[in-house]
Amino acid sequence: MKRVTIVGGSGYTGGELIRILLAHPEVEVYQVTSRSHLGEYVFQSHPNLRKQTQLKFIDPTTLGSCDVLFLALPHGEAQKRIDLYSQLSPKIIDLSADFRLRDPKLYEKWYKIPHLAPEWLQKFVYGLPELHRQDLQTTSYVSGVGCNATATILALLPLLQADFLKDNDAIRVEIKVGSSESGAEGNPSTHHPERSGIVRTYSAFGHRHTAEVIQELGIENISLTMTSVDLVRGVLATAHVRINSNLNQKDIWHYYRKVSTENPFIRVVKEQRGIYRVPEPKILAGSNYADIGFDYDPVNQHIVSMCAIDNLMKGASGSAVQSMNLMCGFDESAGLSFTGLHPI
Amino acid sequence: MKRVTIVGGSGYTGGELIRILLAHPEVEVYQVTSRSHLGEYVFQSHPNLRKQTQLKFIDPTTLGSCDVLFLALPHGEAQKRIDLYSQLSPKIIDLSADFRLRDPKLYEKWYKIPHLAPEWLQKFVYGLPELHRQDLQTTSYVSGVGCNATATILALLPLLQADFLKDNDAIRVEIKVGSSESGAEGNPSTHHPERSGIVRTYSAFGHRHTAEVIQELGIENISLTMTSVDLVRGVLATAHVRINSNLNQKDIWHYYRKVSTENPFIRVVKEQRGIYRVPEPKILAGSNYADIGFDYDPVNQHIVSMCAIDNLMKGASGSAVQSMNLMCGFDESAGLSFTGLHPI
Amino acid sequence: MKRVTIVGGSGYTGGELIRILLAHPEVEVYQVTSRSHLGEYVFQSHPNLRKQTQLKFIDPTTLGSCDVLFLALPHGEAQKRIDLYSQLSPKIIDLSADFRLRDPKLYEKWYKIPHLAPEWLQKFVYGLPELHRQDLQTTSYVSGVGCNATATILALLPLLQADFLKDNDAIRVEIKVGSSESGAEGNPSTHHPERSGIVRTYSAFGHRHTAEVIQELGIENISLTMTSVDLVRGVLATAHVRINSNLNQKDIWHYYRKVSTENPFIRVVKEQRGIYRVPEPKILAGSNYADIGFDYDPVNQHIVSMCAIDNLMKGASGSAVQSMNLMCGFDESAGLSFTGLHPI
Amino acid sequence: MKRVTIVGGSGYTGGELIRILLAHPEVEVYQVTSRSHLGEYVFQSHPNLRKQTQLKFIDPTTLGSCDVLFLALPHGEAQKRIDLYSQLSPKIIDLSADFRLRDPKLYEKWYKIPHLAPEWLQKFVYGLPELHRQDLQTTSYVSGVGCNATATILALLPLLQADFLKDNDAIRVEIKVGSSESGAEGNPSTHHPERSGIVRTYSAFGHRHTAEVIQELGIENISLTMTSVDLVRGVLATAHVRINSNLNQKDIWHYYRKVSTENPFIRVVKEQRGIYRVPEPKILAGSNYADIGFDYDPVNQHIVSMCAIDNLMKGASGSAVQSMNLMCGFDESAGLSFTGLHPI
Repeated sequence: MKRVTIVGGSGYTGGELIRILLAHPEVEVYQVTSRSHLGEYVFQSHPNLRKQTQLKFIDPTTLGSCDVLFLALPHGEAQKRIDLYSQLSPKIIDLSADFRLRDPKLYEKWYKIPHLAPEWLQKFVYGLPELHRQDLQTTSYVSGVGCNATATILALLPLLQADFLKDNDAIRVEIKVGSSESGAEGNPSTHHPERSGIVRTYSAFGHRHTAEVIQELGIENISLTMTSVDLVRGVLATAHVRINSNLNQKDIWHYYRKVSTENPFIRVVKEQRGIYRVPEPKILAGSNYADIGFDYDPVNQHIVSMCAIDNLMKGASGSAVQSMNLMCGFDESAGLSFTGLHPI
Repeated sequence: MKRVTIVGGSGYTGGELIRILLAHPEVEVYQVTSRSHLGEYVFQSHPNLRKQTQLKFIDPTTLGSCDVLFLALPHGEAQKRIDLYSQLSPKIIDLSADFRLRDPKLYEKWYKIPHLAPEWLQKFVYGLPELHRQDLQTTSYVSGVGCNATATILALLPLLQADFLKDNDAIRVEIKVGSSESGAEGNPSTHHPERSGIVRTYSAFGHRHTAEVIQELGIENISLTMTSVDLVRGVLATAHVRINSNLNQKDIWHYYRKVSTENPFIRVVKEQRGIYRVPEPKILAGSNYADIGFDYDPVNQHIVSMCAIDNLMKGASGSAVQSMNLMCGFDESAGLSFTGLHPI
Repeated sequence: MKRVTIVGGSGYTGGELIRILLAHPEVEVYQVTSRSHLGEYVFQSHPNLRKQTQLKFIDPTTLGSCDVLFLALPHGEAQKRIDLYSQLSPKIIDLSADFRLRDPKLYEKWYKIPHLAPEWLQKFVYGLPELHRQDLQTTSYVSGVGCNATATILALLPLLQADFLKDNDAIRVEIKVGSSESGAEGNPSTHHPERSGIVRTYSAFGHRHTAEVIQELGIENISLTMTSVDLVRGVLATAHVRINSNLNQKDIWHYYRKVSTENPFIRVVKEQRGIYRVPEPKILAGSNYADIGFDYDPVNQHIVSMCAIDNLMKGASGSAVQSMNLMCGFDESAGLSFTGLHPI
Repeated sequence: MKRVTIVGGSGYTGGELIRILLAHPEVEVYQVTSRSHLGEYVFQSHPNLRKQTQLKFIDPTTLGSCDVLFLALPHGEAQKRIDLYSQLSPKIIDLSADFRLRDPKLYEKWYKIPHLAPEWLQKFVYGLPELHRQDLQTTSYVSGVGCNATATILALLPLLQADFLKDNDAIRVEIKVGSSESGAEGNPSTHHPERSGIVRTYSAFGHRHTAEVIQELGIENISLTMTSVDLVRGVLATAHVRINSNLNQKDIWHYYRKVSTENPFIRVVKEQRGIYRVPEPKILAGSNYADIGFDYDPVNQHIVSMCAIDNLMKGASGSAVQSMNLMCGFDESAGLSFTGLHPI
């Protein structure tokens, strides 16, 4: 059993890490930190874990060494102390945005401040197994993924592999997100009477996750437009791509099926009947699946490609654990078997 | 046109007062105050009022005199400065809990601190027209009503008038409430991911509105149990009463119909078919109606009596305006004609 | 007082018509029909109207003549009997899709069947006052508007007037809609456990409202992508347009402000602070306003333009009544003063 | 590996059984039937199971024999063919209401029709392990539990064991339920625009689950009042009990803790701080836990006791699998380890 530590365990991604890892067959949850809930039981912050664990939150400055260290801190914190953390554990998975980008200039462009530990950026592998499975098996440092970036990248992955993303009109990605994306700390716009029932296009351009998409897909001309909807967990990315080939649906199907076959947590959803014909996030709550699908208008050579995920799972803690599994040589799916609920 | 001032206009009850009074045929909204939004347009806090008014929030210390003054401040504030406010306006309607109780001892028992202006308590009339229509026509000072107290009182009003509330087992009132009851300021438990989808019995006994119910119904043996549900506006009170008479449904109907006939904003809802057979709050959003209904189990002499209201309207600003109408000699329904939406 | 008849009064648009017209200062609701609820009180289908009217649904075959006839029937019904209806009333407003398109070929292309009364198509004016105010003042026949078409057209209206829609990449419009769009009759996918919490891109291309958009904007290269979200009333259209001019935000502002100034029910929403910075449908429930806004990325010459409406109001019954007001010479805003609620 | 069959697999309880049993370490899902979805993949009805199983629904008349047979049919169906089913499998677990009551007269009183197989009633054990753990270990026939009955019984179990339920005022139980209680088939009142945002006290008395409560608690004087709220999965029962003893909170705590200690799926929730201080259903979605708690008013000797469950899990399929585990000698918790999500 590997001993794992979770720094920043009282937030939503921290809570999901604890939930997954408590049931993971290969690891033991050894230490969990929280400054704001110091000394409290973990289940007081994460009431679903009552009767699952008697762990208490400890002070991050008192940590002992461990085999795997997860950092689930607010953005900007991990880069301040990454040298210190690297002395505590040979393997680190950082769920923040601090080590997702390889180029310090790209970081500074999108995050508006210089990176504090640029020498570390090249050591990290972007923690999306669908893109970096091999590298993840040999690295010691894994970055988290942005939830909106993950949904966008996976929506476009079949088209990337088919080489359809070049010489394109701008790719417009419309992303609908639930309220857990804003984290465990509320703000005036997440107060229930203001947040309930909303359809709020809060960011038309410039979302920071765009940087990861540009890096990972190798294309520049893409925009992410963000709309908050009344949902707690979930992201749906709907990408609009014009292609320059004469294709039929069957040709396109081929690329989607291939991505699904090669990746245990990707499923193609494209049904002619029933209620669930397209990817939808709500049935993915708690699951590590990414459901992808598409529709194609041959007249206008317009593909609409979709990806639905749980932002806290495949978009954060699930991909982090999947990356740990690869990094540690465990079964890639270990600890990630929960399949989601229906109805919900 | 009477000139009205609203002190504390950036909160939810303040916003509803402004919305109603801007369209009221007999009054002019003259001054609106907010410390926290000083200098901002009213429509920035209440986006539904965009293109309805160019009023800005002013400083409460700079108020000029007016004909009617509404106080929509947090509890405890109005009693601090009631002498001052009474110099600004001959008529005052206070929506807080400060002047709802006639007895300073009852206030202290439920609010745990002594009242700061006990000499004013007897000057106010409890602002529920269904109980105090005549007194409201002659008073100059009207208190607000508690939304949960209003739903409870109106659920029990037919039974009170039928003299069924005496010599009873304890009356148990189960109250389900929406999130706007907690006001415009959020707290950790109103953060959308925590507040969405809840069914949370946050107070089993001891809700402060119980004091008003005891005063107004003249009974002691009653409890209010509060459960938050996923709704923004609305209260449903479900009261359990055992009666000591041999009755049939028709006898009971009589008392409910009488209350509806005598009060313009009370409706009886008791249908045998269709979707909407019982009182429900959601279709009352924005309306001043209180829908009442009941069911009766003759074997156990058990009446379940229900009342649904919009907590911000009949439970606060709507009753306040209705009281103003009576106090000022306007038509009792003036400004309160919005009937609610279906579907919603 | 003009006497109005509503054919098909038990559906959602019929219910909204009744609600609005009962409070309209210039008309009397004279007859309301429903086959499925024949003989029942109107308030049994529309519980918000209890104590507002004692009207009952009558048989459509027994209608007497009237001054204005509203048809709120399922698509395809009005065209079957338009000759008959035209004998009952000199003025007709049809809320269905039957008379929205001027060209029978365009109708057949999008609705997949030939039109049954093509000779009537040229007699109708498309009932969107923002486009056809003058024609509506002289016509006797008004078509309804598609709710999604309305949101799309109004999102693009400032850019149309600025002549920015020509020579464009394809315009991609992402539309998020509430459940009342599917009408009062449920289907398996609107069952609450399946419809709650969804983000479902149910139609990537080919929505029939596209035909109206093409006709009214005079452009071909546009797609509407439809996503259902957890909301009852409301549409948000988010349109992506690339422009070929060198502009700044201020230039663009000019065109939006102009549309707002010239139209009583259009508001520009574009704030730097506060919770409500962009157009949002939820605060529009019951209101006839269309809120429009935009954001602009000068690097990529990309405008994101938004329009939020209540699909049952500005997207259906509200525009129909506004059109009636113009056709009958009433004040354009008569009966449409409800401003929406906050919070909701 | 025991081979299990699920009859009626396309409904909600059937779907949950399949989900649980696919991951259960001791059994193999062998046959699943559905008349309405005959020949379709199971994942078409239960989209969460995509990539989990390639099983298809088969015709119930073509079933082969198996080790354990689950019946998840509409009420009234199992009793028609119980002789037949008993020839297919030595062990039967029926999730319907058909075999919950031991007394055919009690069945007829509450279900209004005579039972078709009264000779079978005594062979079944009521499938709530918290009441019948020992009997379940030796029986071959297990009945399902009513979800509302389960929440009520478990809310009252500590008080039953403390002998506080005798000589009481009537016990009033207020139950709030989600929409999945109405099953996978919709009706007009579950259409999303009508069901969303509701607080609907649809049954004041007479809910059929009352019969089970009377049987299992051995008390007559109890009423269940049912209110639908905006939630898909979940039940919260809030029971009002007057006790005749002089107690303090600590005394009462003792009985709640005992129930929790003796039962793996019962947890006591009673916190002084944090957001989750009382039992709440939403964090239990997918989990087999029942969270119980209480509050006590010593002045009026009034206990409010609460129990929250997932109606499809502890209230149906979860208790059924837990009962199977006991009946088959498996670990009682096998297959039931999912702990629920936070946030959700």
